[in-house]
Amino acid sequence: MSATSGESELTLQSVGEFEIITRIREITNAQAQDLPKPIVDSGDDSAVIAMSKEDLVVSVDLFVEGRHFKTDWATALEIGRRCAAAAMSDICAMGTAPTSILVGLAAPADTSVAFIRELTTGLAHEAAGAGARVVGGDLSSADSIVVSVTAIGSMKPKDVVTRSGAQVGDVVAIHGRLGMAAAGLRVLQRGLRSPRVLVDAYRYPEIDYSAGVRARTAGAKAMADVSDGLVADLGHIAAASGVTIDIESASLPVPEALTSAASAFGADPLAWILTGGDDHALAAVFPSNTELPQGFVAIGIVREQADDLVLVDSEPAPSEGGFSHFG
Amino acid sequence: MSATSGESELTLQSVGEFEIITRIREITNAQAQDLPKPIVDSGDDSAVIAMSKEDLVVSVDLFVEGRHFKTDWATALEIGRRCAAAAMSDICAMGTAPTSILVGLAAPADTSVAFIRELTTGLAHEAAGAGARVVGGDLSSADSIVVSVTAIGSMKPKDVVTRSGAQVGDVVAIHGRLGMAAAGLRVLQRGLRSPRVLVDAYRYPEIDYSAGVRARTAGAKAMADVSDGLVADLGHIAAASGVTIDIESASLPVPEALTSAASAFGADPLAWILTGGDDHALAAVFPSNTELPQGFVAIGIVREQADDLVLVDSEPAPSEGGFSHFG
Repeated sequence: MSATSGESELTLQSVGEFEIITRIREITNAQAQDLPKPIVDSGDDSAVIAMSKEDLVVSVDLFVEGRHFKTDWATALEIGRRCAAAAMSDICAMGTAPTSILVGLAAPADTSVAFIRELTTGLAHEAAGAGARVVGGDLSSADSIVVSVTAIGSMKPKDVVTRSGAQVGDVVAIHGRLGMAAAGLRVLQRGLRSPRVLVDAYRYPEIDYSAGVRARTAGAKAMADVSDGLVADLGHIAAASGVTIDIESASLPVPEALTSAASAFGADPLAWILTGGDDHALAAVFPSNTELPQGFVAIGIVREQADDLVLVDSEPAPSEGGFSHFG
Repeated sequence: MSATSGESELTLQSVGEFEIITRIREITNAQAQDLPKPIVDSGDDSAVIAMSKEDLVVSVDLFVEGRHFKTDWATALEIGRRCAAAAMSDICAMGTAPTSILVGLAAPADTSVAFIRELTTGLAHEAAGAGARVVGGDLSSADSIVVSVTAIGSMKPKDVVTRSGAQVGDVVAIHGRLGMAAAGLRVLQRGLRSPRVLVDAYRYPEIDYSAGVRARTAGAKAMADVSDGLVADLGHIAAASGVTIDIESASLPVPEALTSAASAFGADPLAWILTGGDDHALAAVFPSNTELPQGFVAIGIVREQADDLVLVDSEPAPSEGGFSHFG
């Protein structure tokens, strides 16, 4: 995954749009060589993807330099992995797995070709790890880097798990880490580069792309990707379902790295876990008698709708929950 | 489609992300009220779209403020229409029509809510005119406005018309205007606001979204959306098909407005027609004995592969053909 010799001296401007697109296609095809080919791959006006009688699951995410990532805090490879992971996580949260992504990429003309190669490699590599390939894209000039990722999957309509199926008495469970990316961001904001486990968690999430299918198979009634923060995203499930979710704080896993960093920064690890975004854990609601699938941890229960969408130990959740743009 | 009272004083920052998303959903739903609903609409992690045994046709386009549009040259409504039109045109060029779009929108925090309302209305209105609805999106802050549009359609795999089916002896035809947007851009660059027909052509393309289906039904063997310029996009067909396309310049329609503007600017109207982008005409290649479908005009023939991908009157085409980013 290292840059081809000389690419760091070449820029988008010197190489030109069409040559860059050719190089991007080589990278994305190489990462996808073990995956089934679309009926029409990138290079035509549109991609055509076989759907075999299932319905389409599709989501788009935008990633803006200086907002979602900084090039001095993560490598281009890491930024690419993060953009693909965050977008594909939305497909998993419906109860299926991604098969394809499309990438829109805007960057300044003096961006090095090596940077584009690494970014594209990260996108295609993360996609391949999820069983998905890059089937199309668009490239534009811009004053700063913007990446748009459209993630695509398919499933039978009867299998779809939305946010609206939670019912009183159900168990709320999570799969994956919480608070780690928020802690990593704090570390980087202080100008530090360690603890590495936190910084890495900020740079890109580690996602088990089969977790959504496992949850659906086990009977999940509602699911959401935890991208804005646990309280915020459980709030989305509670609002869509017309219920209140009560988190039991003692059941939330608190990694040692989080406790240590919180202590060093005078911060509360529980606040990171409850309100930190960007970890892309999966929150799922199951019937109370469900044997939870591998990797899921019960963290609360569904109660009748109350004034608050989300409670922590039956008290109102911290109000600063969730990342908000324009705030 | 006028702004709701007071919105021009409100900004993304003052109103906040989630309230804006609610307003955007109201707008896009209102524009789509006569269209079939997706299985899961925007508001969940992903949209789910019924596919009824057809395969997925999907394409993404990015639009960057200052590159693809300027807010002092077009209204937000016009910018929205243009972004949706340009993206959906790629679906038509496969031989089908769009059913859904997803919109990623990045904008500065001080952008007025009225601007976002108009932009979104333009996107959803143009989509509805094509029979498509907005099924999802993402919203982010950024230093300048960036719009990503993912356009989605479906079709039977055997019906797909790629760029690679042109054969020697076939007829090349176009549907729609050429050179008008390029002339309109020149008008605006000179600080003028008329002729209106040219300026409007630059602001957003007038697309017949059924032209791709008509061409496919009539037997089109290769098609491409003319977004980069006629010579450039016919070059894409020629390269994919392993042929050379010879344009007969006398057969190219030259609107009176184009001739007048070219005369006023000391420009060549043929150069605008051959190399101007952004009109989103449809170029299609038919067997020589085809009765061309309504609205299509024969402009050339397919020859054996030669040194040049595209000829004009059997001579090499102008070399400056096509818009290129980073150039």
